[in-house]
Amino acid sequence: MAQQARAVQTRRQIVDGAAELFGRAGFERARLNDIVGETGLTRGAIYFHFESKEELAAAVVDEFGVRSAAAVAAVTATGDYAVRQIAMLCREMGRLLTDDPVVGAGIRLVIELNSGQVPIPVYSAWIEALKHLVSVGLAEGDVRPGTDPAEAATFITEAFVGAHVLSYAVSGHDDLSARIDHLADTLMWTLMPAERVAAHPDLLGAQLAESVPA
Amino acid sequence: MAQQARAVQTRRQIVDGAAELFGRAGFERARLNDIVGETGLTRGAIYFHFESKEELAAAVVDEFGVRSAAAVAAVTATGDYAVRQIAMLCREMGRLLTDDPVVGAGIRLVIELNSGQVPIPVYSAWIEALKHLVSVGLAEGDVRPGTDPAEAATFITEAFVGAHVLSYAVSGHDDLSARIDHLADTLMWTLMPAERVAAHPDLLGAQLAESVPA
Repeated sequence: MAQQARAVQTRRQIVDGAAELFGRAGFERARLNDIVGETGLTRGAIYFHFESKEELAAAVVDEFGVRSAAAVAAVTATGDYAVRQIAMLCREMGRLLTDDPVVGAGIRLVIELNSGQVPIPVYSAWIEALKHLVSVGLAEGDVRPGTDPAEAATFITEAFVGAHVLSYAVSGHDDLSARIDHLADTLMWTLMPAERVAAHPDLLGAQLAESVPA
Repeated sequence: MAQQARAVQTRRQIVDGAAELFGRAGFERARLNDIVGETGLTRGAIYFHFESKEELAAAVVDEFGVRSAAAVAAVTATGDYAVRQIAMLCREMGRLLTDDPVVGAGIRLVIELNSGQVPIPVYSAWIEALKHLVSVGLAEGDVRPGTDPAEAATFITEAFVGAHVLSYAVSGHDDLSARIDHLADTLMWTLMPAERVAAHPDLLGAQLAESVPA
């Protein structure tokens, strides 16, 4: 059992090291050998867990999915009204994007590794969560009647991914927090009639009181 | 003079071939040698014009800037009210993204080649154009008072780039036109009070009557 716990820990160490490397260099430029330097583990130990760079990237993306799900769960647990949860979720994912190497690398890998055909489970889960929140927002009277939850969820995801990509290109993510902050507020105007924005003075700037630990 | 005209044509042929290649393979995977196959020109002819892959990528990005400016000019020439021009501009750039290899490759290269520090002239020009349109929209009474033109222009750009990136990742751009269509309409709700959207029955779905030739 101690041996198994050690294996789990080693695997986690490899995934963390790979995330640092993929996040910095991208999939194409990353070499499996560089993970040796990144983790301090032997080549043999790494190959024991992962046979290829592709397999390692898939593990980082899986773990990114786990962290995204945790962020959704933390926001849901606030029991707040739906549109405020949407704003919190954007800010929380924005925070994780710079603070948690697995999330930073995961979002980059998902974009780099897919060019068509493959459905992306981690985005599907995120879009489903947003779709649900938009539906609840409609029922709560905060979302503009006639809004299609699936289309709105897609739009939110596009705006978020675009903010990440442009922030990375323009500033190496230095301006990400400012961009996401503005994005979260802007999305409220996109989703809601103006009088509903006015009815919620705690809405603009809304974020999780305690962020989920990385 | 005939020789100079030939040189200009050869250079254009190389840039077009490079755009096809960069758009398909990305910067990292593209090899200067592959351009030989793509254009049917000799290695010598290509090296006469471009010394490196970096130089060639820069030429594609420059030409992308020229095509973007042409799209802005074509939309401006309609003399339409500003928010309608914004919707047209999004749809026109979306069309070019799939129909014009230089635009498809240019937008991809801009994202791939920049990671911090470097200002991106082509995006700056596009953001300036949008900023101007949002300002005019404010003066025309169509944009929500208090909207910051620079922030709104940035948000529009983020949503556009995110639609491109996700469409490429999920469907190899097959669903781009549907995404941009929805995005252009959604942005009108983002920018405008609902009564201004209602006041313009020709606004949702607005696109250039005749698209700019690639």
